[in-house]
Formats: sequence, C-alpha cells, structure tokens
Amino acid sequence: MLVIGENINATRKSVAEAIISRNAEFLAGMAKSQAEAGADFIDVNVGTGQLTQAQQVEAMKWLIEVVQGVTDKPLTIDSDVAEVIKAALGKYQGERLIINSVTAERERLESIGPLAVERKAWLVALAMGAEGIPETAEERLANCETIMNYLTGIGMAPEQVLFDPLVLPISVDSTQGKVTLDTLKQIKERFPTAKSTMGLSNISFGLPNRSLINRAFMVMSAYVGLDTVIINPLDAKAMSMIRVADILTGADYMCRNFTRAYRRGMIVD
Amino acid sequence: MLVIGENINATRKSVAEAIISRNAEFLAGMAKSQAEAGADFIDVNVGTGQLTQAQQVEAMKWLIEVVQGVTDKPLTIDSDVAEVIKAALGKYQGERLIINSVTAERERLESIGPLAVERKAWLVALAMGAEGIPETAEERLANCETIMNYLTGIGMAPEQVLFDPLVLPISVDSTQGKVTLDTLKQIKERFPTAKSTMGLSNISFGLPNRSLINRAFMVMSAYVGLDTVIINPLDAKAMSMIRVADILTGADYMCRNFTRAYRRGMIVD
Repeated sequence: MLVIGENINATRKSVAEAIISRNAEFLAGMAKSQAEAGADFIDVNVGTGQLTQAQQVEAMKWLIEVVQGVTDKPLTIDSDVAEVIKAALGKYQGERLIINSVTAERERLESIGPLAVERKAWLVALAMGAEGIPETAEERLANCETIMNYLTGIGMAPEQVLFDPLVLPISVDSTQGKVTLDTLKQIKERFPTAKSTMGLSNISFGLPNRSLINRAFMVMSAYVGLDTVIINPLDAKAMSMIRVADILTGADYMCRNFTRAYRRGMIVD
Repeated sequence: MLVIGENINATRKSVAEAIISRNAEFLAGMAKSQAEAGADFIDVNVGTGQLTQAQQVEAMKWLIEVVQGVTDKPLTIDSDVAEVIKAALGKYQGERLIINSVTAERERLESIGPLAVERKAWLVALAMGAEGIPETAEERLANCETIMNYLTGIGMAPEQVLFDPLVLPISVDSTQGKVTLDTLKQIKERFPTAKSTMGLSNISFGLPNRSLINRAFMVMSAYVGLDTVIINPLDAKAMSMIRVADILTGADYMCRNFTRAYRRGMIVD
C-alpha cells in the first residue's frame, strides 16, 4: 500500500498560519519529516477559508517550491479549484503526481479532468456527486461509473483513476463500515485496473480510541484491496499497521519491507 | 465474535506442572481471570506428553471440576483422545459446550463425532487430514467437505460445526495469509450455516512483533466472517481489537459493546 502524507493541509490551523505568514521552515520541516517517515506522496493543500482564490494560487506556487526544495517525493496536489491546480502544475517539476480530487459533478470533471490527462497524473475521484456522500454502495458505484465514463472519454487511462469509496461515521450508522468496504470491493470488481485511495478517519468520528479504530479499518481495507491510503505518516502505529497489512495480504514479498522497517526500529506495537 | 480463552493448555509448562501437581488454585485463577477479561468459552486441555491416557482422563475430570467451581462460562473440551473427552463430558454440567477437535481423519471423526452429536455440542473441525495442514485452500476445502459429510451423516446439524481454516506461517510462504482467508471465505460460502474458529498465532511464527501481526490478521478474518477466535483473553490489546473489529463489521449494533468496554477502561490502544 502506498502512503499519501496528509499533514500539509490548510484546514489545520498551524498549517494555515504557516502558509499565510510564508513560514517556509515550518512547512519544509513537515514535508521532510513525512518523507523520512515513509510517505510515498506528500499532499499539499492551501485551501484555508482565509484566502481568496488569487491568494491561494500564489500560496500554492510558493508551497510547491518550498516542498520540492527538501524532498524528491512526488506530490499530491490537493484542491478543488482548477486554477490552483494549474498553478501548482506550472511549478511542479516531478513526473509522478496525484491530483486530489474530482467528484461526479460535471463542472469539477470538466475543469480538473483535462489537467490530469495532459500531465498523465493519477486523479483522486470521490464516489460522490453534488448531494454529498451517498449512504449506499450502489449510489457510490453509480458516481464512479459517471466519473470513469467522463474521464476515459477525454483520454484518461483507467489506471490513472484513484477511486475513494468514501467513509461515513459508524457512530451514526453501524452499517457504514460495511458500506465503504462493499463499495471498495465493487470498485475493484467493476474497474479492475483502476486504483483506490481512502481517507480513513471519518469512520471513527464520535467514538473514543479513534486511531485504533482507524487502523483496524485500514487493515480491513487492505484485505479488500486498497492501493493507497491518506494518513499522517508520523503516526508510527498506523505506519506499522500498514507494513503488517502488506505482509498479510502477500503484497510484501518474503516480508522484506516489514523486516527492513523492523530493523530500523519502525515497527511499533 | 466470540472469544475462546486458550490459556489452560497443558502444552504450556506452567499449566502442565499445575495439572500434574493438582494445583487447583493456580488453574482456578486462570479460569477466573479469563472469564473476567471477557472470554465467552474457557478451553481446557490436559494433553501434556508427560501423562498416560489413563492419567489424562483423571486429570481432565479433576480440571473440569476445578474450572466449574469458579466460573459458569461454558467450556471448550480440548483433546484429540475420545476417552478424555468422554470423561470430561461425564463431569461437565453446562449445557453449551465446544469439543475441540476433529480432522478429516476417519478415526477421529468416528470416535469424537458421536460424542458431539449426543451432547449437541459445537465441534471444532480442522480443515486437515492425516498429512497435516494442506498448503492450498482447495485441499483444505476438500477436508471440510469430508468432515461435513460424515458429521451430518451421523445426525449433526451444520450449525454445530466450527470449521478452522488453519494457519501456516507467512515467514515461510508469503501467500499463506491469503490462503487462510480464502479458505475461510469459501467455507462461509459453501457452508453458510456452519460456524468458524481460528487459532491465529501460527501466522506470525518466525517474525518479530508477533502479537501485532496476530491482531491485524484477526481483523482481516473478522471482515471475512470469523465467528469465534481462540486467544489469550488477558491480552488487552487483542481483546480491544476484537471489539473494534465488531463495530467495523456492523456486528456490534450501535457500538454498544465497544462503548461499554470503553467505559470500563477495557479498550487499549
């Protein structure tokens, strides 16, 4: 499973402040620590409500330079505004990248889809439309169909699509763990060459011991075939569990990554 | 998921010594602590190589009385010797019970099967024959077929059968996690009313951080539909993970067991 490091996200207060005050040291440190902890991609998000779109464009250009200054890891350019993504692509020098994200909404597909096609980027596709996260696997699948039809129609390879089956809290509806996993399973069956990703933490909203619940949900998702996961790579227990999930699914041949991580003292119980 | 407490097993040196020296206090304490920690069944096993069959019969009768003296929890009578099981059944006063175990070997089916039928016990059925644990899911399934055919033929209800898909170490063969989970999945499909159980710990043989690996494997097994698990109930992290698995699969309606365990301070990260 590949890890997308989620920490540089302007919905966090400390990150928003660092972006607004152009605190390069703070954000470079976040990029570096995530890379060192084993992130395969570094997510960059400047979407704080305090900035206008023009300010977000400038902030994103600056942030891409800051992050690229300290790590060669590929980036995940995280915005729902095409102009911000475009600006990021102008600055980003790497070859591999993820754009995060589109939904089944026509306007987002039309504005962001072509950018991903042109740059041969992977594109996160949330299994939702304008009405928010559907409660059933069937409705989520229908959104995935809409997205895949549009994107392949404009020249994207199915392998570039990273479907996110989406997660609602089990504290509100006990069946939602199963709904997400069923959605993921059906995505894998319906689009065998497409990839998948997930932000896990919504599953445990409203419950105690959230990180434990998130880790267990990640393990189940790994069994179903989750390809990438959006988490905090500095969470050593979560990262350890990813290594363990990989040996159990057979993804880690001869347990080599696991034993290497163990020797470096990176497996935490 | 139901928990079978595995601790009173004579393959452990301290347990063997306590059985031989008739240290009732030690063994009663083990029964009590497992019951208090949330075990649904208490496994009792006197199979130490140091005792003759006649001595095992006497030891089992004594042990059943000791355990029943301190807990009302149902027992899992664990032996591959019909005479030992028969002696245990003579002493055991509970209604619910598990007999552990048979294999596809004709002789064990013929000697132990009828005892389970007569007592309406659940019967653990290992998916193996005389040649040991098969490497493939197909061979394990074939053993389950043999077992189910025999047992239903002598009057057992399929609901009484607890299939164990069996576990080989992933350190030896990276595909074995998947083989066990595939076997479990196929057992659930082929025998939808039968139950399942598993001793997990073999999965992590030869690797570091074994309990972490075992817990993750338990979570994947829960997703596939594991009904009962044979573990040490005093392992608070494992017990916590079982509660978490149950909320994620939707087995714990409204997360009630989980929140109750949390309030008692029994959820450990």
